[in-house]
Amino acid sequence: MEETFVPFRGIKNDLRGRLMCYKQDWTSGFKAGFRILAPTTYIFFASAIPVISFGEQLERDTEGVLTAVQTLASTALCGIIHSIIGGQPLLILGVAEPTVIMYTFMFNFAKERADLGRNLFIAWSGWVCVWTALLLLMLSILGACSIINRFTRVAGELFGLLIAMLFMQQAIKGLVEEFRIPERENPKLVQFIPSWRFANGMFALVLSFGLLYTGLKSRKARSWRYGTGWLRSVIADYGVPLMVVVWTGVSYIPSGDVPKGIPRRLFSPNPWSPGAYENWTVIKDMLNVPIVYIIGAFIPATMIAVLYYFDHSVASQLAQQKEFNLRKPSSYHYDLLLLGFLTLLCGLIGIPPSNGVIPQSPMHTKSLATLKHQLLRNRLVATARTSMRKNASLGQMYGNMQEAYQQMQTPLIYQQSAAQGLKELKESTIQAASCTGNLNAPVDETLFDIEKEIDDLLPVEVKEQRLSNLLQAIMVGGCVAAMPFLKMIPTSVLWGYFAFMAIESLPGNQFWERILLLFTAPSRRYKVLEEYHATFVETVPFKTIAMFTIFQTIYLLICFGLTWVPIAGVMFPLMIMLLVPARQYILPKFFKGVHLQDLDAAEYEEAPALPFNLAAETQMGAGASYAGDAEILDEVITRSRGEFRHTNSSKITSSTSTPANDPLSMQSPRVRQSPRLSELRGERSPRIRGLPSPKTGESKLSNLGKSPQN
Amino acid sequence: MEETFVPFRGIKNDLRGRLMCYKQDWTSGFKAGFRILAPTTYIFFASAIPVISFGEQLERDTEGVLTAVQTLASTALCGIIHSIIGGQPLLILGVAEPTVIMYTFMFNFAKERADLGRNLFIAWSGWVCVWTALLLLMLSILGACSIINRFTRVAGELFGLLIAMLFMQQAIKGLVEEFRIPERENPKLVQFIPSWRFANGMFALVLSFGLLYTGLKSRKARSWRYGTGWLRSVIADYGVPLMVVVWTGVSYIPSGDVPKGIPRRLFSPNPWSPGAYENWTVIKDMLNVPIVYIIGAFIPATMIAVLYYFDHSVASQLAQQKEFNLRKPSSYHYDLLLLGFLTLLCGLIGIPPSNGVIPQSPMHTKSLATLKHQLLRNRLVATARTSMRKNASLGQMYGNMQEAYQQMQTPLIYQQSAAQGLKELKESTIQAASCTGNLNAPVDETLFDIEKEIDDLLPVEVKEQRLSNLLQAIMVGGCVAAMPFLKMIPTSVLWGYFAFMAIESLPGNQFWERILLLFTAPSRRYKVLEEYHATFVETVPFKTIAMFTIFQTIYLLICFGLTWVPIAGVMFPLMIMLLVPARQYILPKFFKGVHLQDLDAAEYEEAPALPFNLAAETQMGAGASYAGDAEILDEVITRSRGEFRHTNSSKITSSTSTPANDPLSMQSPRVRQSPRLSELRGERSPRIRGLPSPKTGESKLSNLGKSPQN
Repeated sequence: MEETFVPFRGIKNDLRGRLMCYKQDWTSGFKAGFRILAPTTYIFFASAIPVISFGEQLERDTEGVLTAVQTLASTALCGIIHSIIGGQPLLILGVAEPTVIMYTFMFNFAKERADLGRNLFIAWSGWVCVWTALLLLMLSILGACSIINRFTRVAGELFGLLIAMLFMQQAIKGLVEEFRIPERENPKLVQFIPSWRFANGMFALVLSFGLLYTGLKSRKARSWRYGTGWLRSVIADYGVPLMVVVWTGVSYIPSGDVPKGIPRRLFSPNPWSPGAYENWTVIKDMLNVPIVYIIGAFIPATMIAVLYYFDHSVASQLAQQKEFNLRKPSSYHYDLLLLGFLTLLCGLIGIPPSNGVIPQSPMHTKSLATLKHQLLRNRLVATARTSMRKNASLGQMYGNMQEAYQQMQTPLIYQQSAAQGLKELKESTIQAASCTGNLNAPVDETLFDIEKEIDDLLPVEVKEQRLSNLLQAIMVGGCVAAMPFLKMIPTSVLWGYFAFMAIESLPGNQFWERILLLFTAPSRRYKVLEEYHATFVETVPFKTIAMFTIFQTIYLLICFGLTWVPIAGVMFPLMIMLLVPARQYILPKFFKGVHLQDLDAAEYEEAPALPFNLAAETQMGAGASYAGDAEILDEVITRSRGEFRHTNSSKITSSTSTPANDPLSMQSPRVRQSPRLSELRGERSPRIRGLPSPKTGESKLSNLGKSPQN
Repeated sequence: MEETFVPFRGIKNDLRGRLMCYKQDWTSGFKAGFRILAPTTYIFFASAIPVISFGEQLERDTEGVLTAVQTLASTALCGIIHSIIGGQPLLILGVAEPTVIMYTFMFNFAKERADLGRNLFIAWSGWVCVWTALLLLMLSILGACSIINRFTRVAGELFGLLIAMLFMQQAIKGLVEEFRIPERENPKLVQFIPSWRFANGMFALVLSFGLLYTGLKSRKARSWRYGTGWLRSVIADYGVPLMVVVWTGVSYIPSGDVPKGIPRRLFSPNPWSPGAYENWTVIKDMLNVPIVYIIGAFIPATMIAVLYYFDHSVASQLAQQKEFNLRKPSSYHYDLLLLGFLTLLCGLIGIPPSNGVIPQSPMHTKSLATLKHQLLRNRLVATARTSMRKNASLGQMYGNMQEAYQQMQTPLIYQQSAAQGLKELKESTIQAASCTGNLNAPVDETLFDIEKEIDDLLPVEVKEQRLSNLLQAIMVGGCVAAMPFLKMIPTSVLWGYFAFMAIESLPGNQFWERILLLFTAPSRRYKVLEEYHATFVETVPFKTIAMFTIFQTIYLLICFGLTWVPIAGVMFPLMIMLLVPARQYILPKFFKGVHLQDLDAAEYEEAPALPFNLAAETQMGAGASYAGDAEILDEVITRSRGEFRHTNSSKITSSTSTPANDPLSMQSPRVRQSPRLSELRGERSPRIRGLPSPKTGESKLSNLGKSPQN
């Protein structure tokens, strides 16, 4: 993405790019068939549950003026519109915590003004939305999103981890609250005597940890050893929603003496209760707001605009991280424009606006990567089986598989030789076969364990389409009608779900992986090398990794501390935005350019010349795997942007790094990795791929354990 | 062990064998230094906690005549004596559940007799012990333990699994009880109002699952990635006791409104309470028992004798399973003789007698195997490091390591070339090295990852000594004095511990592994082959494995059902003994001899001639690994007793099967396996050892998934 501040140019570029694949966005979604329901349900729960919880919080804080009905309505409405006419359909919209905090602040302000008061609060907040929308439109038109390039991994991942911390904090707070008397309840009710409160708290511990444990386990069902493949697949796809249902069921087991209020459950008015629709006609009241407040609304509006600009863009960026190997273009400018209109719409009908949310957006992409992986895998397994039945040799089988793979690829103009991923495994398997002398013999399952090998072979690809986003938004809308059922969910299950979301968002976050690396015993660091690992583990000295990570951690803790400051705390995004100049001007003074590139690739930095030994190593390794492909090699060496992992002759890395020769990455000078899906999800790959060759092995160990070399 | 029914011969043989290594039993224990405390503490908790719980049960059932003080005293006394003058020091003695049930029955009988009554109950039970002792002495002298050979894996493992089920049942029952009003308590206490009962139950769930989860996790600390090696080691060694302390601490967190009785804690009188010593002088009362009851005591005595004979022998057998590669002889006859005397002693001082317990005895052996493994490993790692520093070649390094290994071996007369285990890894590593052309170059850590390789390389060996048993028994005795502290432990932690013990006893139980295999999806069975697995997985068709396992499971469920029958239920061992003739005469009619040998090796069965293709395969494989060692090969082929796993050229099995050429296994015709320790503990080995060679791979797959071949 070029940095352009010419008005409208960014929006035009975005629109052009997305329109090109708009039809395919839909056809691709429908082609996936019923399987699209797996990511849809997964994201629906991740989207709806926090929104309901935030709605409850809002209701408490605004004395019932705004409730979960409004937050759900906003999420559904914005989600539906965004999924249909939005730019990046991977982005998930929803009412988020900062919005709730801002609205609470605005409510408290309005309540105390005689000429505004509780009655005109929604009308006034409508004006705030109008101003916010104007600011967002302006930012979008002027190309403010161009700076998104300057948001490097260091900023995005820090933000992601901060959000995870806030979710976890919410989970813990919620659990502690279960032992106390809720604020607006009558403390004389039987369920609030000490014994029942204690019982409620303990029950909440059981329910929330039960949900968390079973939820995390069920996500890994695909690698279970027991049960049929179908069952494992269903559990992995729908396990978390299922567990919410199961633990809600468990919460109904105690009966008899146990009073009705135990465990505590979600509280929200039914949408058909009287008064629930007052806010929809707010537009009539907006002109009753005194002019001074209409102008004054500009102040909170700037805060919200900055917040949304940042949140929306970073959520979108995290949903499009390089590891996902997305094939369709981004759409930051246009999406911000649309967000402006959505904010305006929400303001005018008196509901809190939605924006791009974390961690739901990256979770969405991950779940779609799983879907794509399964679709590809099923097809390739079938192809390989057919080949075997026909007594094909290994070479023939790979030919057939490559053909099938190519057919599964979307014929978009900016994407060609996509079968790169298949190539490497072919190489290594053929190598293995030639070692045992079976190269030309017919393949059978003993030589080539189809399902396992194909799992390893497939690079990460994402089913990029609009259907899952549209469906989940519609389902969120359905929640408004299903309120009586939602009210059956115990609040403790909700806290467990918050903790689950926090933990689910961690794998794939390199910042988090680096924190873990710091705590890994030096003698066990070889285990990191045996598994999927990012470039920096091999190329950057451990001391530098540690320094960088500690700096980032301190920054994170400062941001986290900021969120505790009453109202200014909402502005913690500003603190994160400060990271951009810090990364650009300060960090390079403390860290070597090569190392910074590996730890945190920035597109605005020219890749420094690689030191000789590093280049030689790359050449040696790449030569072994991709012999005779000199063009690719040149590409790799000259355009490396830190995201490339050195290929060496050992199998440790060969199946996870792909040289970049697709035109897209030539346009935007970045080199893509092809991690496997399980690695993104943080599942440990249970294999050691033979001994590393002495030379590269040595350099790895020295990087991890000893003093820096270059 | 030969089957001899000549009086005293078995005892003499046992004594001769054990006296030969008696001195070494002590020196070896002291040489281990403070590390011996790890298995000691582990077994102390596994021994003391159930004994306390059974003591509590006994107190309830005998109206306070017998308490935890007596059960602890019996366990400590018998344990100390057995560890000093007993035969097999791996065997752990303790008061077990069947004893408690029998004593309860006897109490209920005595209570209702006017001329016996509550006062003479202990005196009468003294007479029962006298008769029991006589019967046990007789059984021992006449060589009844000779039939222990006929107790094959099928019986022992079924018994082990049954005990695990009973422990788990106790855990569940206990947890359910936490929600109810305890029997002998005053139901009007504040902690028994419904709300506090419910709170207590929920708290119990939290505490027991907390203990279970953290206990199981801490046992695996050695393979954690985080923390220093020392910390990981301490947590793995002392994690479970530590967790009992931690969760007991957690149980004290709620305060304020929570009444004192929540959570419920262990109940037992202090040993210095008045009346606690009444039973010690029971011998005076024994002559007051009417003669008819003295004679009548013979009836319960026969039941107890049969029970003890069975329990004691099977516990001893399970502690000496072939996988442990024990080097010192067994001592069934002599131990039964000693048990007779111990029973007499307990009877005369009025405490319930102890006998060999499951699962503590096999747990003891496993923890000593871990100890030995660590000691060996530390030594070998040091040797390898030294060699590397001297720039030794791979060959030289192995020479040094073999020497060090030999030095660590106990110089017992019936054990020579023990360094066999090292040989195989040497072969395979050298093969790998020659492949990359590094055979004569100096070894460095990149070629040979010391700690990892040595972990893989070491066969299971057990630190066979008396010190850990003696120390744990003394510590159990110390519990009597520490009663005020023990009473701080919540009962719910106890239930969690029961569940923990049940789960800990499962790995290594082939019956259990086969049940898991039945539930393993056919497409995932390759995973079983990739890890440690017993012979039968490769040699017996899946259908046969399934049939055999289903038969065994039904038998298990019948036995389990029997334990629910009020008093006759104590006699479930008889049901298990029935398995002996069933195995000998009925099973061979339904299963092929070769398959039965692999599933359940019986020493009394002559090994049937191996079918040609099987023998050829063995020869081929063994030839590859142990070329030039024709004697070993002959030994293997002619003496195979089903426990041997076919060695083939692929690395999948080569490091886990050892040919038998030590004189011990020549005397007793069995072939030993050398599984690795982690495999015994059920930890999955995280590696695939290269592609299987086509031929064996094919036969494996066909065994697992398709129809039988031979």
